[in-house]
Amino acid sequence: MPDYPSILQSIHGEILAERPEGKLATYIPGLAKVAPDQFGICLHTASGEDFLAGDSEVPFSIQSITKVLLLAMLASTEGDSIWQRVGVEPSGNPFNSLVQLEYEKGIPRNPFINAGALVVCDLLLGLYDDPESNFLKFVQRISGIPEIHYDRSVAKSEREVAYRNLALLNLMKDFGNIHQDVDAIIRFYCTACSISMSCRHLARTFALFMNHGILDGGEEILSINKAKRINALMQTCGFYDESGEFAFRVGLPGKSGVGGGIAAVHPGRYSVAVWSPPLNPKGNSAAGLRALERLTDLTGNSIF
Amino acid sequence: MPDYPSILQSIHGEILAERPEGKLATYIPGLAKVAPDQFGICLHTASGEDFLAGDSEVPFSIQSITKVLLLAMLASTEGDSIWQRVGVEPSGNPFNSLVQLEYEKGIPRNPFINAGALVVCDLLLGLYDDPESNFLKFVQRISGIPEIHYDRSVAKSEREVAYRNLALLNLMKDFGNIHQDVDAIIRFYCTACSISMSCRHLARTFALFMNHGILDGGEEILSINKAKRINALMQTCGFYDESGEFAFRVGLPGKSGVGGGIAAVHPGRYSVAVWSPPLNPKGNSAAGLRALERLTDLTGNSIF
Amino acid sequence: MPDYPSILQSIHGEILAERPEGKLATYIPGLAKVAPDQFGICLHTASGEDFLAGDSEVPFSIQSITKVLLLAMLASTEGDSIWQRVGVEPSGNPFNSLVQLEYEKGIPRNPFINAGALVVCDLLLGLYDDPESNFLKFVQRISGIPEIHYDRSVAKSEREVAYRNLALLNLMKDFGNIHQDVDAIIRFYCTACSISMSCRHLARTFALFMNHGILDGGEEILSINKAKRINALMQTCGFYDESGEFAFRVGLPGKSGVGGGIAAVHPGRYSVAVWSPPLNPKGNSAAGLRALERLTDLTGNSIF
Amino acid sequence: MPDYPSILQSIHGEILAERPEGKLATYIPGLAKVAPDQFGICLHTASGEDFLAGDSEVPFSIQSITKVLLLAMLASTEGDSIWQRVGVEPSGNPFNSLVQLEYEKGIPRNPFINAGALVVCDLLLGLYDDPESNFLKFVQRISGIPEIHYDRSVAKSEREVAYRNLALLNLMKDFGNIHQDVDAIIRFYCTACSISMSCRHLARTFALFMNHGILDGGEEILSINKAKRINALMQTCGFYDESGEFAFRVGLPGKSGVGGGIAAVHPGRYSVAVWSPPLNPKGNSAAGLRALERLTDLTGNSIF
Repeated sequence: MPDYPSILQSIHGEILAERPEGKLATYIPGLAKVAPDQFGICLHTASGEDFLAGDSEVPFSIQSITKVLLLAMLASTEGDSIWQRVGVEPSGNPFNSLVQLEYEKGIPRNPFINAGALVVCDLLLGLYDDPESNFLKFVQRISGIPEIHYDRSVAKSEREVAYRNLALLNLMKDFGNIHQDVDAIIRFYCTACSISMSCRHLARTFALFMNHGILDGGEEILSINKAKRINALMQTCGFYDESGEFAFRVGLPGKSGVGGGIAAVHPGRYSVAVWSPPLNPKGNSAAGLRALERLTDLTGNSIF
Repeated sequence: MPDYPSILQSIHGEILAERPEGKLATYIPGLAKVAPDQFGICLHTASGEDFLAGDSEVPFSIQSITKVLLLAMLASTEGDSIWQRVGVEPSGNPFNSLVQLEYEKGIPRNPFINAGALVVCDLLLGLYDDPESNFLKFVQRISGIPEIHYDRSVAKSEREVAYRNLALLNLMKDFGNIHQDVDAIIRFYCTACSISMSCRHLARTFALFMNHGILDGGEEILSINKAKRINALMQTCGFYDESGEFAFRVGLPGKSGVGGGIAAVHPGRYSVAVWSPPLNPKGNSAAGLRALERLTDLTGNSIF
Repeated sequence: MPDYPSILQSIHGEILAERPEGKLATYIPGLAKVAPDQFGICLHTASGEDFLAGDSEVPFSIQSITKVLLLAMLASTEGDSIWQRVGVEPSGNPFNSLVQLEYEKGIPRNPFINAGALVVCDLLLGLYDDPESNFLKFVQRISGIPEIHYDRSVAKSEREVAYRNLALLNLMKDFGNIHQDVDAIIRFYCTACSISMSCRHLARTFALFMNHGILDGGEEILSINKAKRINALMQTCGFYDESGEFAFRVGLPGKSGVGGGIAAVHPGRYSVAVWSPPLNPKGNSAAGLRALERLTDLTGNSIF
Repeated sequence: MPDYPSILQSIHGEILAERPEGKLATYIPGLAKVAPDQFGICLHTASGEDFLAGDSEVPFSIQSITKVLLLAMLASTEGDSIWQRVGVEPSGNPFNSLVQLEYEKGIPRNPFINAGALVVCDLLLGLYDDPESNFLKFVQRISGIPEIHYDRSVAKSEREVAYRNLALLNLMKDFGNIHQDVDAIIRFYCTACSISMSCRHLARTFALFMNHGILDGGEEILSINKAKRINALMQTCGFYDESGEFAFRVGLPGKSGVGGGIAAVHPGRYSVAVWSPPLNPKGNSAAGLRALERLTDLTGNSIF
């Protein structure tokens, strides 16, 4: 096993010295006021150990990382019918959200762009009477951390500027690919994005994907096949139009959020979470990307 | 180690029974007259063993699989400057060749779509006086198989219908991203696509990518970092607009060609080549895809 | 002056004999149940005469023809500031509504596609407390026909399936190009589309555009320059992605609606309205287009 | 009849005072070295009079204006079969050349974008053994000016940078919509664009379109119906993605070239040519557009 403690310290030192440039997400008031110079990392190994550096215990808004958890909850009970409603291909470029959705008649490219996550929410609303409560319980259960909670003020401020998501939902509704009430979907989706977690929470939560769908206690949440597929989707679609760059530089399946967090996994070896709020022009944490690139360089163990 | 011989036999049997539907590529006469009901598979392990089933010794036209080998030859001597001329992101959809190239001002999305491979050829023409000869020697060397050769009649018939590639080249030239003579590039590219190999040849050739850039004899062709990046590119971009589907169903980095071949690798474990001429609607071997999906199911060991 | 009565009779006869093929618009229940084999035409000359043939007194839903009237009401009081919110270029192709709107950052191509008409409605809502009532009065006034009215059941059924228009509005709101309440805009727009008129009503209403903005009684509603511009917009943008075809075959500025109506003008000579419910694949009245093509052939007097 | 002499003098004075901003076309050496502060205008009436102001006798490169003349020569002998090879719709936006051509399977939107004019040239090469010579004779004949000639140095320098046109031709050839030799088409097209004419030459040449297809001496070159259609195409497609703006501001059918010329017609009344080399951002003569806008304002007689 690599010497993770000294590798993490080294990465932490490099990031503090380099300070990769980026800008805070400003469209949600709750995210714009976070102190930008924070950096945390937590690596959770297959043997159950946590290695930490920096601000790894400070909670932040996981935002789009929640898309992986929403899909996991859906896949834990549903089968291949999911994939009639949402695709599994990378989306290509930043303009694509509405463009591709129109060409492809309301079927989103994958569950990790907004349109796809909204379809996942639509499906969850059809399964649960109180999806917000069920989803929080699911996340608490797979992480083993009961204090994980929603940040209602972030959810509310996100809901107030959700025009583009409303455009996506209405366009998909026009194509017959949204069945539930549009406003209920927006409410659930914004709440799901508002989950607050630290790097430690997030690394533990993603242990599920490192462990082929099995919780530490042995309980199977996802079949090995479903877990493999979610990892494959993170690899090809986890970073919007920077997914190729992330595979190229880091070489791990992962998912980022505009709160500055990134979670990634090396199947069978470790899960890892990093956090640094300033984002690069593609909307991914600048320091987070750099830290994960250094991690697979220093350990010599990307999945490729 | 899984029982590869019986796994390959089982896959062979299933494919013969199922006969996944597809159509031969018809735009090149040389490809249109291949007997469609052939199927071969060869798995080459990290310990140097070959496991074979079906028509695994029959040579076929590797076509676009050559794009990986062209990139490998270029990367074996050149550094990051390559990536100023071609990107590393998936291309999204089938229409994209010219569309994205125009939006993105002549910089192809990645080296595994036609536009990107043509830029790689343009760079190789700037490095070698006789790139056809140098490339063939490179392939013979990394495979350890001196009898690998070009099929000149396939190259010629491909050159005669290369209008779309000429459109791509001229568009990139207009944007300043092609420096060599357009006709010389087309000639080299069509020749490079015409290499004839069997599954056994191909699995051995791709051992380079399974072995992190090192040949069996210990010679380093690519640094570990460069080999990782080529694998990452195969994972995200190796199957045109079906790259996500391949990651999702198979979970290995790989590359397909319209001749019906697919080469894939499980880094550190094995390289594998399959061949069956009929193509699915996205232009990838229908039976080949199915065989590789079964391989990672039966061995339980995709990279995810 | 051409012999309009016999020309209209001749056209009427040809249409009954030919029965150009088409399909009823079905997305709005109110339109789907119209008897398809109706055809009417009314030509209103600069000297104030009406020439009629067929079902020219039967009221129908003018639908998108209302976009010209909405723009006329807005232009009657507002100046060039309108054109900072909406463009004056043809939209090119049927997919464009959302695609171009996203590329062009929420500024619709022109006021005669849905997105543009919704911006016109947004502006009218900022000017009038009760725009529905004001708009109806405006139409009654320029037509001189006080019995023109809304068809509330059509408006209601249109509102219930307005998902695509909601998508357009929310996307434009995200870009800052919609200022009023989205639901209020939809309500006003669907009501405005539901106006019920006969060919005779419509030909008289469009006399305004034939007469360079002046009503029969001499009142100036639009300056000559504004009237010219509205005619130019009808010429280049009045028939979605069939605008070029209409200019090419008919050679008059005009506007169509999915209710099967078309209004057109020959500035200084006549206004004309035709109606036949079945639509061609581009969504324009099949028999209506044919009738107008014959009109400019037989009179030898298109504007070109 | 309006007082054309004083109107032209007034426009000339305004343009000299205003000096509308623009930039010379620089991609062709022959165009980049023209003195930018020249301005000429010539109006030719239906009764055969010429009214001139400014540099109206100075020859310039007509460039894309030639597309109208190429189409006229083709239409003078061919019927509706032309329109199976090229469309009649506006092209929408500046990116569209290759994008739309790919979506629409090699059928250009209209004959006044490059792709469409190249198809017209392809058709002419199928009709004439020496199309360059035949085309020049056609232009000399319809203008009545035998000294009109090609500028071979402009043609040559244009041919040397024709990469984008080669891309268009090869893409259309891939779709089966180009039948002749690609290099022969480029040669003919670049030569046809290099015709050198003054405003006076151009106004007289376009008298054909003002006169419904009839030459001054009474000879019919185009049927009334064909002439109407060419005018309609100029109206909807003559100014690339500024066609709507030209209709909106000027209200006449016309065609511009990157040499700074614009020809326009008021059917039945006059043809007009303006010239000023600096181009606006859309590639149309800045002062030329302004002059024509003033012309229809001051005469009060656009076609709308």
